[in-house]
Amino acid sequence: MAKVAVLGAGSWGTALSIVLADNGHDVRLWTHRAEQAEEINETHRNNKYLDADLPEGIKASSDLEASVKGSEAVVFVVPTKAIREVAKKVDPFLEKEAIVIHATKGIEPKTMKRVSEMLNEELENYEYKEIIVLSGPSHAEEVAQRQPTTVTVSSLQIEHAVRAQNLFFNESFRVYTSNDIVGIELGGALKNIIALGAGVSDGLGYGDNAKAALITRGLAEIARLGTSLGANPLTFLGLPGVGDLIVTCTSVHSRNWRAGNLLGKGDKLEAVLEQMGMVVEGVRTTEAAYELARRQNIEMPIVDAIHQLLFEKRDAAEIVQQLMTRTKREEMDDFASILRKDQGK
Amino acid sequence: MAKVAVLGAGSWGTALSIVLADNGHDVRLWTHRAEQAEEINETHRNNKYLDADLPEGIKASSDLEASVKGSEAVVFVVPTKAIREVAKKVDPFLEKEAIVIHATKGIEPKTMKRVSEMLNEELENYEYKEIIVLSGPSHAEEVAQRQPTTVTVSSLQIEHAVRAQNLFFNESFRVYTSNDIVGIELGGALKNIIALGAGVSDGLGYGDNAKAALITRGLAEIARLGTSLGANPLTFLGLPGVGDLIVTCTSVHSRNWRAGNLLGKGDKLEAVLEQMGMVVEGVRTTEAAYELARRQNIEMPIVDAIHQLLFEKRDAAEIVQQLMTRTKREEMDDFASILRKDQGK
Repeated sequence: MAKVAVLGAGSWGTALSIVLADNGHDVRLWTHRAEQAEEINETHRNNKYLDADLPEGIKASSDLEASVKGSEAVVFVVPTKAIREVAKKVDPFLEKEAIVIHATKGIEPKTMKRVSEMLNEELENYEYKEIIVLSGPSHAEEVAQRQPTTVTVSSLQIEHAVRAQNLFFNESFRVYTSNDIVGIELGGALKNIIALGAGVSDGLGYGDNAKAALITRGLAEIARLGTSLGANPLTFLGLPGVGDLIVTCTSVHSRNWRAGNLLGKGDKLEAVLEQMGMVVEGVRTTEAAYELARRQNIEMPIVDAIHQLLFEKRDAAEIVQQLMTRTKREEMDDFASILRKDQGK
Repeated sequence: MAKVAVLGAGSWGTALSIVLADNGHDVRLWTHRAEQAEEINETHRNNKYLDADLPEGIKASSDLEASVKGSEAVVFVVPTKAIREVAKKVDPFLEKEAIVIHATKGIEPKTMKRVSEMLNEELENYEYKEIIVLSGPSHAEEVAQRQPTTVTVSSLQIEHAVRAQNLFFNESFRVYTSNDIVGIELGGALKNIIALGAGVSDGLGYGDNAKAALITRGLAEIARLGTSLGANPLTFLGLPGVGDLIVTCTSVHSRNWRAGNLLGKGDKLEAVLEQMGMVVEGVRTTEAAYELARRQNIEMPIVDAIHQLLFEKRDAAEIVQQLMTRTKREEMDDFASILRKDQGK
C-alpha cells in the first residue's frame, strides 16, 4: 500500500481521499487551515465540505512538508487560483519517483494555461515533468457514498496514467486511461461554463428542451476550441466530455449550475460568489476561454454570452434570449467542421 | 395559411397542433375516439394527455377522410404500433401534392423497419415516396407552454424538409433541417431504450455519476448501430442525438424514464405499462434493436441488458450491476471505431 498526499481538503479532495483510504492507502490530507485538519482528525468528519464519515486511513495535516515527503503520489485538488502557490511550496519536498496527479478543473486567466502546464512550470525539481489528470462525471457526494462512478486518468505517457489508475481503481470507482491530456483538461474546465449557462437558463424559468439545446451546442463549442488546441475530438464524446457535461448541467449537486441558477434569478455575481462559500471555477474559466477563443479565432457564442453576463453587466434574460433565437439552420456544421479538420491532419 | 391534418391526439400530437395553430394554420386533429374529439371541440382541452388550453385553430375529428382530404400536409403522430393501420386508411384520401411528416419515435419489431419505411410501404398511392421526420429534444408539456424548443426535420431531399420547416418554424419552436433521415429516426427511437435504462438506474437508487456513464455509453451504442445502418455519425452528436438523449434521460417529463424508474423500484412490466396509461415506445423498440444488433453484428450491452430485464425476467439490480462493472478500460474505442469506419467510406 502506498503513502499518498492529497493537497486540498475541499469536497473533491476529501472524496478522493476516501477512495484512496478504501483501497488501503495511507492518506495524508493536506489543508492550509490548521483548525480544519484538527476537526478532521478529531471527528473524522469534514462537515463544511462533505457529508460523510471519513475512514481511519485518512490523516489530515496543515504541514505541507510532512505531507509530501515520502509520498509515492501527490494529488493536487486545490482551486486553479492556488495551484502555482502550492506547487512552489511542494517542489523542494517532492520525491524523485513520485507521481503527480491533479483533479482541478480550470484554466488560468491571462496565461490561458491548463493546470498540468502550470504544475510543470512550478515543479522545477520534478524530473518526470509528466503530470497526470483525473477527470470525469463525478460528484464528490456520490463518491463518498460509494455510488458507482467512472473517471478517466490521462498523461502523455500511458504508463504514468496506469500507475494512477492502480491507486484509485476499485469496485465502485472505475478508472479508465487515455493519453489525451489536453482534451481531458479542457473538457473538464470548459464544461463548467456551459453548466453556468444551464443554471442561468433554469433560473430564468426556461425548460428542459431549451437546456438540452444549450448543452448540445455547448458540447460542440468545447470540441471546436479543444480541437484547435490539439485535443482529440473523440475525447469530448466520452466520459470526460459529454459524460461530465451531462452530470454538471443536470444535477442539483453542481456548484457551477447552482451559481448560474442564482444569476438567472437576478442575483449579482458578487452576492452569488459570497453565498456559495466555495470556489466556482467556471467564473475564472470563462475569462480564460473568452480570451482563448479570440486567440484561436474560434466562434463560441455560449462562452461570449456568459462572459457578457459575468463581466460586462449584461442582463441574463437578454443574453439567453439572444442565444435561443440565434439563426443557425444547419446545427450539425459544428462537429462536421471539427472532424473534417481532424481528418485532414 | 395551410390546411394540416395531425393524426393522433396524444400529448405530442396535441402539442404539435398548438405550434401549427399558433402559426395560423387550419389544424385538423384526428383521433380514433369520437368522444375525445368531442371533448377537444367543446372544452378546447385534451386533459388526459396535455395540460394546456388549445387555440381556436384546432378542430378535432374522428373522421379520417374529412381530416386528410384537402390537407396540404399530413402529420402522423400515432404510436409505432398503429402506423401501418392508420397509413392504410389514409392512403386513398391523401392529396397528390401533400407532404407527409411523422413525429413517431420507434422501430417495428420483427421487420425492424423505421417509421418512414413503414409509411412508404403503406401509402401505395403516394407518388412523392418521400417521408419527412420531425425529431429533437422536445417535451410536449414545454412546447404547449411555448418554452423555447429546437427540433430537426429531415427528408432525403432537403426541399421537402424545408416545406415542413416553414410550416412549424416560429419564435419559440426553432426548426432545423438535415438530410440524414436514417440517423434522425434511429437516434429518436433508440434513445428511448437508454432512457428506460436511466430510469432503472435511478429507480435502484444509483446516482448521477452512474447515470452519466450510462448515457455516455448509450450514445456510443446508438451511434455504433446507426452508423452500421447508413446513418451519419455526426447526427448522433446534434440535437436529435445527444440533445434528445439528455432530455429524455434526465427529465421528469419522460415517460420512458418513468417506466424504467418503476421497473428499477421492482414493479413488473405488465403493471408498469398499465399504470402509465400511455404508450411506452422504448419497450417495443428494445425488441427491435435487440434483433437489429444481432443482424448487424454490433455489440450493444445496454440494449442487451434492457432486453434481459423486459423479456427474460432478469433482475434489475443484477443487470445494472453487471453493466456498471463491465471491464472496459478504453472507453473511447467506441466512437473511434465508428469514425474510422465512416472516414473509410
